Amino acid sequence: MSVSYRLADIAAKLGGRVLGDGGVRIAQVATLEIAQPQHISFLTNSKYRAQLDTTKAGAVILGEADADATDLPRIISGNPYAYFARVSALLNPFPEASPGVHPGAVIGEGAKIDATASVAATAVIGDGAVIGAFSVIGEGCCIGANTVIGSRARLYPRVVVYRDCVIGDNLIAHSGAVIGSDGFGFAMDEGLWIKIPQTGRVVIGDDVEIGANTTIDRGALNDTVIGDGVKLDNQIQVAHNVRIGAHTAIAGCAGIAGSAVIGRYCLIGGGARILGHLELADHVEIAAHTLVGKSIREAGSYAAIFPFSKTGEWRKNAVHLRHLDDLAKRIKTLEQEVELLKGKD
Amino acid sequence: MSVSYRLADIAAKLGGRVLGDGGVRIAQVATLEIAQPQHISFLTNSKYRAQLDTTKAGAVILGEADADATDLPRIISGNPYAYFARVSALLNPFPEASPGVHPGAVIGEGAKIDATASVAATAVIGDGAVIGAFSVIGEGCCIGANTVIGSRARLYPRVVVYRDCVIGDNLIAHSGAVIGSDGFGFAMDEGLWIKIPQTGRVVIGDDVEIGANTTIDRGALNDTVIGDGVKLDNQIQVAHNVRIGAHTAIAGCAGIAGSAVIGRYCLIGGGARILGHLELADHVEIAAHTLVGKSIREAGSYAAIFPFSKTGEWRKNAVHLRHLDDLAKRIKTLEQEVELLKGKD
Amino acid sequence: MSVSYRLADIAAKLGGRVLGDGGVRIAQVATLEIAQPQHISFLTNSKYRAQLDTTKAGAVILGEADADATDLPRIISGNPYAYFARVSALLNPFPEASPGVHPGAVIGEGAKIDATASVAATAVIGDGAVIGAFSVIGEGCCIGANTVIGSRARLYPRVVVYRDCVIGDNLIAHSGAVIGSDGFGFAMDEGLWIKIPQTGRVVIGDDVEIGANTTIDRGALNDTVIGDGVKLDNQIQVAHNVRIGAHTAIAGCAGIAGSAVIGRYCLIGGGARILGHLELADHVEIAAHTLVGKSIREAGSYAAIFPFSKTGEWRKNAVHLRHLDDLAKRIKTLEQEVELLKGKD
Repeated sequence: MSVSYRLADIAAKLGGRVLGDGGVRIAQVATLEIAQPQHISFLTNSKYRAQLDTTKAGAVILGEADADATDLPRIISGNPYAYFARVSALLNPFPEASPGVHPGAVIGEGAKIDATASVAATAVIGDGAVIGAFSVIGEGCCIGANTVIGSRARLYPRVVVYRDCVIGDNLIAHSGAVIGSDGFGFAMDEGLWIKIPQTGRVVIGDDVEIGANTTIDRGALNDTVIGDGVKLDNQIQVAHNVRIGAHTAIAGCAGIAGSAVIGRYCLIGGGARILGHLELADHVEIAAHTLVGKSIREAGSYAAIFPFSKTGEWRKNAVHLRHLDDLAKRIKTLEQEVELLKGKD
Repeated sequence: MSVSYRLADIAAKLGGRVLGDGGVRIAQVATLEIAQPQHISFLTNSKYRAQLDTTKAGAVILGEADADATDLPRIISGNPYAYFARVSALLNPFPEASPGVHPGAVIGEGAKIDATASVAATAVIGDGAVIGAFSVIGEGCCIGANTVIGSRARLYPRVVVYRDCVIGDNLIAHSGAVIGSDGFGFAMDEGLWIKIPQTGRVVIGDDVEIGANTTIDRGALNDTVIGDGVKLDNQIQVAHNVRIGAHTAIAGCAGIAGSAVIGRYCLIGGGARILGHLELADHVEIAAHTLVGKSIREAGSYAAIFPFSKTGEWRKNAVHLRHLDDLAKRIKTLEQEVELLKGKD
Repeated sequence: MSVSYRLADIAAKLGGRVLGDGGVRIAQVATLEIAQPQHISFLTNSKYRAQLDTTKAGAVILGEADADATDLPRIISGNPYAYFARVSALLNPFPEASPGVHPGAVIGEGAKIDATASVAATAVIGDGAVIGAFSVIGEGCCIGANTVIGSRARLYPRVVVYRDCVIGDNLIAHSGAVIGSDGFGFAMDEGLWIKIPQTGRVVIGDDVEIGANTTIDRGALNDTVIGDGVKLDNQIQVAHNVRIGAHTAIAGCAGIAGSAVIGRYCLIGGGARILGHLELADHVEIAAHTLVGKSIREAGSYAAIFPFSKTGEWRKNAVHLRHLDDLAKRIKTLEQEVELLKGKD
């Protein structure tokens, strides 16, 4: 990557106030600890302030409160972490993909691929599918019949989108993601499971990112819906008819069961499980590895984690969990007996 | 989809008793809430009975008890949910796949592909593999050498089946599923892990469905065996030498450790974990997110879920889990002391 | 597989002491229970010693303590399980892959593929990537630009390695594994998530095995690092900037959050979760389904599992978990009251 910018030019593009030498040339971002003179670094946690004295960074991004914490060339921003993200995006643009369809791709009848889009070797675009402007479809991706993908999408190799799905602009989907597979729906009849055809779609808004090997099932009758700005980490399972509100972020390995409705701006921790048909309000935070078994109507932070300990201690303590009700009753009995004894005095 | 049927024709095909106008034309299934006159809907939960009064559905499927709950054209069935599944399958047949091998597929030496089967572009069929009648092998699928797949299989894009596996009829496998990868077996020797070759196979019965990105490892020495009618949701991990009994259904993200034996007609909840070498009887139900650490010899429903609460309350309560044994001992001591005090009266 | 060896020849290659007829011909490994005369079996668990009397195995591998437990032809080894692993590897070599690039593979500009390496049909090798001697790149694999893979790697079909990653020798990677996808990093700014470009790499040592559908994210600024001899089972999630020490083994479905540092020779159970930025010492064992929420500085075994029970009993007991603090306070009160009552005597 040979891009580089003068500090003043960065501020001209992204805003913020320059203090010190605006002429320093910046080619990359780095942590304070490993930065070199061609790097810009940032301070978002006062715990690392001492590193400002020793860093070799050519420039730093600081919040207003830290504006004078160093003499290094610096940009002052109201939100230095977001500023850093924008500088990094400036210095690390997506690798270029040449527009056009690779001769080793397979394109279905009636598919509409924008002239500015790029389709890689071994990708397969289904009949009637639509690929928007500047979108990049990676190697081995399969886009189902009649699926519509908006503009500036970036699908890394081996993403599958089944037929009839609708995806907005600016999608980022990582390798192995599967969108639109059948939901898990069966009726039991005389000892056999009868498959319920999954006739809904997956509908995804704008600015969504989907992690590697994440799966999003199509709806059973109605659609599965992912709102604008939703960010899904790796290996998340989103079952049929789930609805995820805009700007919610979900960490790796979480599972959302069928027909759950998750609000806007929620944060769901890694490996958390949301049971089916529940509703979570906006701005709900769920701790990692927590199962949510009831709807949550109120914003706030929720958890259910068994604290770990040495296996011997865990065993000694955990055995009582099978007798908690008994322990509670014995406490109740003791209270009554003590009350009686006190009365006798 | 332009298929449509008269209500009476549906009953002629699938059974059930028609009440009201059997001539109404049905093109699709829908929920009571969003159904239109060309739709057939269904009532399986009395909670939604009021919707019968307001639905615009052209017809409905009802149980015997609800036969007179509406004047709409209707089919009465002993199992309305299964009936609905069958109607939906009638109205939503699998998209047609033309028989034959796409020129962009790669076929190994000695592979036997039935003339009625379909192999898509970029699929790879290994040497000596067998693909049965009317089976559809999707884009990017890889079928290993000498693997046998029965008739009417439907493999969505990018399913991998390793070599030497045996799969029955009517398999549905969703994108990203991996069948026959090596089990996780190593011997520690002088500080190094020595890999144990996984020489077993995966053997899968008839009528099995496997969800997106689910993995089923081949056996270490003997085989991993999945019974007839087993239904596996997305992102399930089935380790080497597991045996899953017929008609068991497992929800997303569950993990079954090596050599576990699961009975018939079990229901395993999402994210549940079954430890290695355990046995579960037939008709065992395991709640979501529950770890099973001992064999279960008796049919029934089992759970182990920590109830969630607001994070502050959770923290206050959870801290005592590291001292439960101490609490139990203090209760015991109190009981002895109270007994003593009572004796003193 | 038609390979076979005389027992004495096996010992000549792999060491160990032969007792009984060294001329018996061995073609395969098997358990004592199902072995036939052409098989070699092994005893590593005294629980199965009775099977030595009934096995039809042609030969067995035994530890020193069991050297005289049978008259069967046998090899005596200090570590019979590791010995068995080595015999099995001898009898079950990797299927041969012809060197060379299949005409259906797609090779980028400036990619360097060793003449002894094998690249299968539909594999895609990016610009400037390097594939070492005797490495086998399976069908549908995508190797990103400038990624370097050492010698004797075996990538099963549909492994993706993103650009700029570095992998040592002897990698085994199973189907669906994704290496080098973006870490999950965003800055919130005025209601929108701003993506933080993930500019680090994934760096993997020698002798690593990666299971099916496992994902390893690239670092945010610095690298994600997997040490020599690390063994990862299926469907494991390794987040950005994680560091895993040499010879650590992690079971299926485990999740390691961002920037966690795991020591050498750790054993992490299936479905376990390690939270972000924590450190685990060397030789730490974590039980299955356990969340680790604090750093662990001391070798040893740790657990946090809620013991399962019948659902009715579980419900009765679990309800008290929301009132544990209250129960603890009531015990405290009782103790004070009893103390008072005792004083009154």
